[in-house]
Amino acid sequence: MKLQLFDQQVYVQRRNVLKQSMGANGIIVLLGNEESSMNYKDNTYLFRQDSSFLYYFGLDVAGLAAIIDTDTGEEVIFGNDLTIDDIIWTGTLPSVGEMAALVGVAQTRPYAEIKHYVHKAVTGSRPVHILPPYRPENKIKLADWLNTSLEDVAGRVSLQLVKAVIAQRVIKTPLEVAEIEKAVSISVDMELAVMKYARSGIREYELVAKAHEVAIANDSRLGYPAIITKHGQTLHTHYYGNVLEEGDMVLSDIGAENAMHYGGDLTRTFPVGKQFSTRQRELYDVVLNSMDHAISMLKPGVRYKDVHIQACQKLAEGLKQVNLMKGDPAEAVAAGAHAMFFQCGLGHMLGMDTHDMEDLGEQYVGYTDTLKKETVFGLKSLRLGRELEAGYVLTVEPGIYIIPELIDRWQAEKKFSEFINYDVLNTYRDFGGIRIEDNFLITDTGSQLLGKYLPKTRQEIEALRG
Amino acid sequence: MKLQLFDQQVYVQRRNVLKQSMGANGIIVLLGNEESSMNYKDNTYLFRQDSSFLYYFGLDVAGLAAIIDTDTGEEVIFGNDLTIDDIIWTGTLPSVGEMAALVGVAQTRPYAEIKHYVHKAVTGSRPVHILPPYRPENKIKLADWLNTSLEDVAGRVSLQLVKAVIAQRVIKTPLEVAEIEKAVSISVDMELAVMKYARSGIREYELVAKAHEVAIANDSRLGYPAIITKHGQTLHTHYYGNVLEEGDMVLSDIGAENAMHYGGDLTRTFPVGKQFSTRQRELYDVVLNSMDHAISMLKPGVRYKDVHIQACQKLAEGLKQVNLMKGDPAEAVAAGAHAMFFQCGLGHMLGMDTHDMEDLGEQYVGYTDTLKKETVFGLKSLRLGRELEAGYVLTVEPGIYIIPELIDRWQAEKKFSEFINYDVLNTYRDFGGIRIEDNFLITDTGSQLLGKYLPKTRQEIEALRG
Repeated sequence: MKLQLFDQQVYVQRRNVLKQSMGANGIIVLLGNEESSMNYKDNTYLFRQDSSFLYYFGLDVAGLAAIIDTDTGEEVIFGNDLTIDDIIWTGTLPSVGEMAALVGVAQTRPYAEIKHYVHKAVTGSRPVHILPPYRPENKIKLADWLNTSLEDVAGRVSLQLVKAVIAQRVIKTPLEVAEIEKAVSISVDMELAVMKYARSGIREYELVAKAHEVAIANDSRLGYPAIITKHGQTLHTHYYGNVLEEGDMVLSDIGAENAMHYGGDLTRTFPVGKQFSTRQRELYDVVLNSMDHAISMLKPGVRYKDVHIQACQKLAEGLKQVNLMKGDPAEAVAAGAHAMFFQCGLGHMLGMDTHDMEDLGEQYVGYTDTLKKETVFGLKSLRLGRELEAGYVLTVEPGIYIIPELIDRWQAEKKFSEFINYDVLNTYRDFGGIRIEDNFLITDTGSQLLGKYLPKTRQEIEALRG
Repeated sequence: MKLQLFDQQVYVQRRNVLKQSMGANGIIVLLGNEESSMNYKDNTYLFRQDSSFLYYFGLDVAGLAAIIDTDTGEEVIFGNDLTIDDIIWTGTLPSVGEMAALVGVAQTRPYAEIKHYVHKAVTGSRPVHILPPYRPENKIKLADWLNTSLEDVAGRVSLQLVKAVIAQRVIKTPLEVAEIEKAVSISVDMELAVMKYARSGIREYELVAKAHEVAIANDSRLGYPAIITKHGQTLHTHYYGNVLEEGDMVLSDIGAENAMHYGGDLTRTFPVGKQFSTRQRELYDVVLNSMDHAISMLKPGVRYKDVHIQACQKLAEGLKQVNLMKGDPAEAVAAGAHAMFFQCGLGHMLGMDTHDMEDLGEQYVGYTDTLKKETVFGLKSLRLGRELEAGYVLTVEPGIYIIPELIDRWQAEKKFSEFINYDVLNTYRDFGGIRIEDNFLITDTGSQLLGKYLPKTRQEIEALRG
């Protein structure tokens, strides 16, 4: 196995910034991930290292953990060297000491010893800073090391560390932007392969197969489960068994995660046939218009929540034109009526994670101490609200989703009947959904589209299908 | 989402057999699996249901568990119905009650209530039968429900239940054999795609991409991580970054798991160029000869351990002919010297799991109360040793693997120098590995190759490469 890493200094500097930001203040414990079992212990999913561990220590290897002592500056990687059985079954790997040296860490210890390091800090009343565990095995380990209950681990998470890591990871360096660009460009090729292969009579999973093929053949994987569906109204459906038919649209939301674990996240919606129907065309243009407006607003200092609200207003204006909504679009959005059609957020941070750093908490990644994430339907799903800064990488992904179960529920309550034309809407029950999504870097003066250009206007899409 | 299930009666009968085998003897608790997170909670791997849960309850849905009361005959499925948010994000699904009815279960309860059912049995001093958990979240749940520590859960596993489940699942019904045949035939198509695409200059992951494409386009997945490598000596390598070159061999060990979660497990080894080299050809024929001999032995009443030993002797005879081994082949195998070249077992049970039921314990699946799994190098990796019975499905997969690290270690110890020609062996250090693997059903009188025929002789392979 050959490790893929940035230059050693990248990791050294990242850790130095973290130490400076934390101050002399106890120890930081960063857990790498373990292999994850599918149906029996040794049959494992494709290994995914923890992103924060990758960010500071780079090593894409299961079964590692690290401690940074903010008082002494000491850094230790914990892990076990391979046995001859390991070599026979899974091949050679540098020793833990050799791997640590590659990322500028001088000290290594057997994995079991991390428990003593943590214990010693706890008994010495030194702060132990941990991030929130999202895998149960890491939760079990932390409870053991901290000598506490599983229920108590969440309460031991260090908000200071969470905020320090986010502050650092949220600003993408040119090195990182270059990786994201690569991943987005592979994602573009995945979308093109899906669009090229789609035709009446095949099943959705045949398109999913193409997406995987292109990703893997580019030394990448899918960063998140593919959403390739004729029922685009289901935001995150992972069922692929439907047969494509003339008249259907396909919504394809896919992204490559490249070998350095940076990702793209793109969506296109296109007709199975050569052209959109009239209704599809009308709503496609409503979504695209909203997207273009949102993109035009991207620059440092603008709150993404405001971009979201403006994009929603553009959707509401367009929906009014086709008689699905009525009344004042701004009032409709303020009331939340647009959420019948657009139930989620306009976008999110993107990086090593598709929803970047979501494990650290949406409130801290996407919001601030003074700007809290809202809890009302619609806005509660907006993952990013805060003021934009140069170096942010994010998605813009407006959509229109016609969800029969939601129509029935709201109509029964006569909810927002001053803004929603339920009679018309009921004639759209089988419409499905449209989403268009691209990825952007916030620059000093505005924004920059990341990756190769992927056809996005109705005319461009229809030209590809023709 | 559309559930794929056998007829309701299949599950009812399977549970009735289990109840009869267990007797009136407390409650059986079978846990389904949950979603497994990659890098943050909501970004999950492709869901894999627990195989025993699938076998008895069929429902390929996350977040379910079931209890069978062996005293009353009562069966309950525990799970939670979808909320409107679930429907918006992941789509509709039948209610838990509707799903349970599809598999002949009348009672359902919210998931949280299973804890009370288990508690009640524990406090009533009724036996609680559980299987060994291989996922940490299920271990946490069982510890909670049984009101015990995580460390204690392993001690609470019911050997009676383990043996009852194995006795039932180990004999494949015609319905199951038909599913395995489908999966093997898809696996054949995957191998053919890999062989067709392989050429000098590409990287291994480009072949991995083809395997995934064919699997997914057939409504399947890979049942285990692909082993597609020019370094076939590493038995389970999952690194795919090497460039294929003229003169290399590719070892491709891949298998489809179909929509009903039955799998195939095939291996072929082929030259990157049009033909094997002389050395490759010689050892290929040694492996094939061993395989054919093993296949000829397959029938009820034969111990698979004896088939393994005979196959090893054929390998040793062939290795002696090319001067890599010396002395008496039977003595060499009895001493364990062949394990320099063949470090693992000849095969394993195959079913819903590639190593079928490995989570329940290799000793119980592959051995018996009187035939224990050995612990010496080589035989300790033989997963299947017991006497064959009609209805078993298994793999036959001999190989020759030249592992430099093992040569160095054994040569330094002068280990088996009466059987191994180290001088010659050292000229093979870069040889790599060869494995050939097919899947068989044990019939009343012998065995039956499962799935479509996949070229396997040297001549057939070279004809494909030509």
